[in-house]
Amino acid sequence: MSLVIFNASRVIEDLRELDRRTGDVNGAQRLCWGTKWREARAYLTELLAEIGIEPELDEAGNLWARLEGESKPGLALGSHLDSVPDGGWLDGALGVMAALGVLRAWTGAAEPPPRDLVLVDWADEEGARFGRSLFGSSAFAGTLEPAEVRDLRDSDGRAIADVLKENGVDLDRAPRAAAQQDGIGGYLELHIEQGPLLERERISVAAVSGCTGIERKRFTFRGQASHAGTTPMDQRRDAGLAAAATALAAERIPAAEGGVATAGALTLRPGIPTAVPGEAVLTVDLRNPDAAALARMLEVARVAARAAATQRGCELSEEPIWRIDPIGFDEELVDLALDVTHDAAGRGEAMTSGALHDAAEVARVLPAAMLFCPSKAGISHAKEEDTAEPDLKIGIETLMALVGKVLSARD
Amino acid sequence: MSLVIFNASRVIEDLRELDRRTGDVNGAQRLCWGTKWREARAYLTELLAEIGIEPELDEAGNLWARLEGESKPGLALGSHLDSVPDGGWLDGALGVMAALGVLRAWTGAAEPPPRDLVLVDWADEEGARFGRSLFGSSAFAGTLEPAEVRDLRDSDGRAIADVLKENGVDLDRAPRAAAQQDGIGGYLELHIEQGPLLERERISVAAVSGCTGIERKRFTFRGQASHAGTTPMDQRRDAGLAAAATALAAERIPAAEGGVATAGALTLRPGIPTAVPGEAVLTVDLRNPDAAALARMLEVARVAARAAATQRGCELSEEPIWRIDPIGFDEELVDLALDVTHDAAGRGEAMTSGALHDAAEVARVLPAAMLFCPSKAGISHAKEEDTAEPDLKIGIETLMALVGKVLSARD
Repeated sequence: MSLVIFNASRVIEDLRELDRRTGDVNGAQRLCWGTKWREARAYLTELLAEIGIEPELDEAGNLWARLEGESKPGLALGSHLDSVPDGGWLDGALGVMAALGVLRAWTGAAEPPPRDLVLVDWADEEGARFGRSLFGSSAFAGTLEPAEVRDLRDSDGRAIADVLKENGVDLDRAPRAAAQQDGIGGYLELHIEQGPLLERERISVAAVSGCTGIERKRFTFRGQASHAGTTPMDQRRDAGLAAAATALAAERIPAAEGGVATAGALTLRPGIPTAVPGEAVLTVDLRNPDAAALARMLEVARVAARAAATQRGCELSEEPIWRIDPIGFDEELVDLALDVTHDAAGRGEAMTSGALHDAAEVARVLPAAMLFCPSKAGISHAKEEDTAEPDLKIGIETLMALVGKVLSARD
Repeated sequence: MSLVIFNASRVIEDLRELDRRTGDVNGAQRLCWGTKWREARAYLTELLAEIGIEPELDEAGNLWARLEGESKPGLALGSHLDSVPDGGWLDGALGVMAALGVLRAWTGAAEPPPRDLVLVDWADEEGARFGRSLFGSSAFAGTLEPAEVRDLRDSDGRAIADVLKENGVDLDRAPRAAAQQDGIGGYLELHIEQGPLLERERISVAAVSGCTGIERKRFTFRGQASHAGTTPMDQRRDAGLAAAATALAAERIPAAEGGVATAGALTLRPGIPTAVPGEAVLTVDLRNPDAAALARMLEVARVAARAAATQRGCELSEEPIWRIDPIGFDEELVDLALDVTHDAAGRGEAMTSGALHDAAEVARVLPAAMLFCPSKAGISHAKEEDTAEPDLKIGIETLMALVGKVLSARD
């Protein structure tokens, strides 16, 4: 293999410039399919042009940039440029700019890489606008069903198909992005942890063994709205209290089963100080890397919701919002990732990601693995999101080292 | 005293016509200071014209209609024509139309009443538009402070002073409505119970001894918003769960202290399924007819909120929304009301109102009392609000009888 000079500092400079162009005082504003997101892609396209590569879009709006190597299939590297509103500068952008750094290093080498190196910027990982996460990567993996998302609208009431069209994407044709699988033999993604574990352990980089499974449900409790002053306590059917009891019961589940449980959204109707709530809609998000434990968590949550509803004379209904089985990454790639994190004094064991990532979709159809950098105070999806610069450099350099290992191992 | 022929059926006809003119399929729409409310007053003015009385408005927008009697001060009878949005046909309107029925009966008599009879339609009892209940009656009682309400806006963002101005009311001059006290020596109000007690007891009418005291607080819990997937349970500062625990603690208070406790509104931020709530705003409404018990209820609620906040690492702040001491009605008037309800096979004991009424404000400055009719299924503030017609007639006739008693007693 020829000498390849990798510049992690340049990757960080690119990230800071991206943030200057597409962020504001409230944080990153690269909401997918919007102006700032398109500006982010325009900047990425500028940077690719500097190294003589012209990107292409697939039918789902994913951006692909291929550096030809000596053989195929290619090794894909990437993440997503889109952010939540008022998001952080690193979530997603780190993996894309680090991938660009890898391509840049290889274009400066005397010989082409042993295999094609392919940068991918997945479209709409966050789902922050329409509530459907992993849009582009699920289209790639063959799990996007246009009929299931067609009715989604953003907070301005605009239909997803119309917004996609403005970005040159035809919703019905989006599943054709799966054809991109043909040219790709594996996938690596560097991302920030978005949690506090690595910071607490004072570790700069970790291999990720897979993504947790998720059961996300919406429980609706229907009681009877009534006057707060004239309804005796023993004649109330208080849907809000049934939901509150369910949220507290969910909090106790991880003590027995591991994982995490979150009651993130609760809406009361009529939701005024002077009325007993007649309806309450509660979301419960359960996560566990073990599929059997995840199933038990859901069953315990359902039993608690039923008991809380019965106790207060409420009817209960349940709707699925989202679910995904735990997804393990490719064992061979995870072992290679552990080798390079070991060399970088990183974490001795691979960790499970509690967040979803594009790599989870990709892993359905291709060998995939991830690396994590620490997040300061575990904060993400906020302007405070940050990673100490030495940690960032180690993470970026570890990705480069992992690419080298994979190219050597499969050369 | 001369023969006075009272027609309770006509009062019910007037109520049904009012509902036809100002309600729709979703219920009563007489939101104060709006078009339908003005139409309701126009209809009342038509009905007053039929009996030769022209109403006047005071500086707070209260409507007064005086039938001259043989002496002064007058006996006031009334309630409010305004309703909540999608409200019921009887809440407030019953007391106004019944008062009109009393005046109509006396205008048909051979002699004038022993004292002036004065119909009053209080402005904005509900506070449904700006959140300030008892606007007109508190101006009459001298407890309305313009500075305390000046910043209130409706859901369209319109300032209260501007909306009042459109209705000919100058907010700064509203307290001058207190001058109306001069012509009035007592106040009687017929209202629906808005609760299930009378229906459960199969009773058609009851005397009311006073209005419960209320402590209404807004508790804000501030923790840390964080990622639902990556934040370990032991590192969360979940404001939503702190609020849920407080709501459940409030529910338990009446078992020890009597009264009622309601957690009617709860808002989570960011309030999305995938984030641990970083902020939660909970309203707690506590009611008790006993002032000391009410104070203890508040103290227990505060202790529970502090404990819930501490347990989950949240900061707690508390804001008052509204408070009112328990208000007892005039003992002599309540005794007379018990006499007439006894004659009508009504409730043997006076009951406490768990809801607020204009009579509570009036009772600060004048002898006042109320009568209650039952509410079907205890429902109010909804289109289902109703009272069986025989019960309505008994309630309306009992008010007439009470007016007769009061006029005789004080004649």
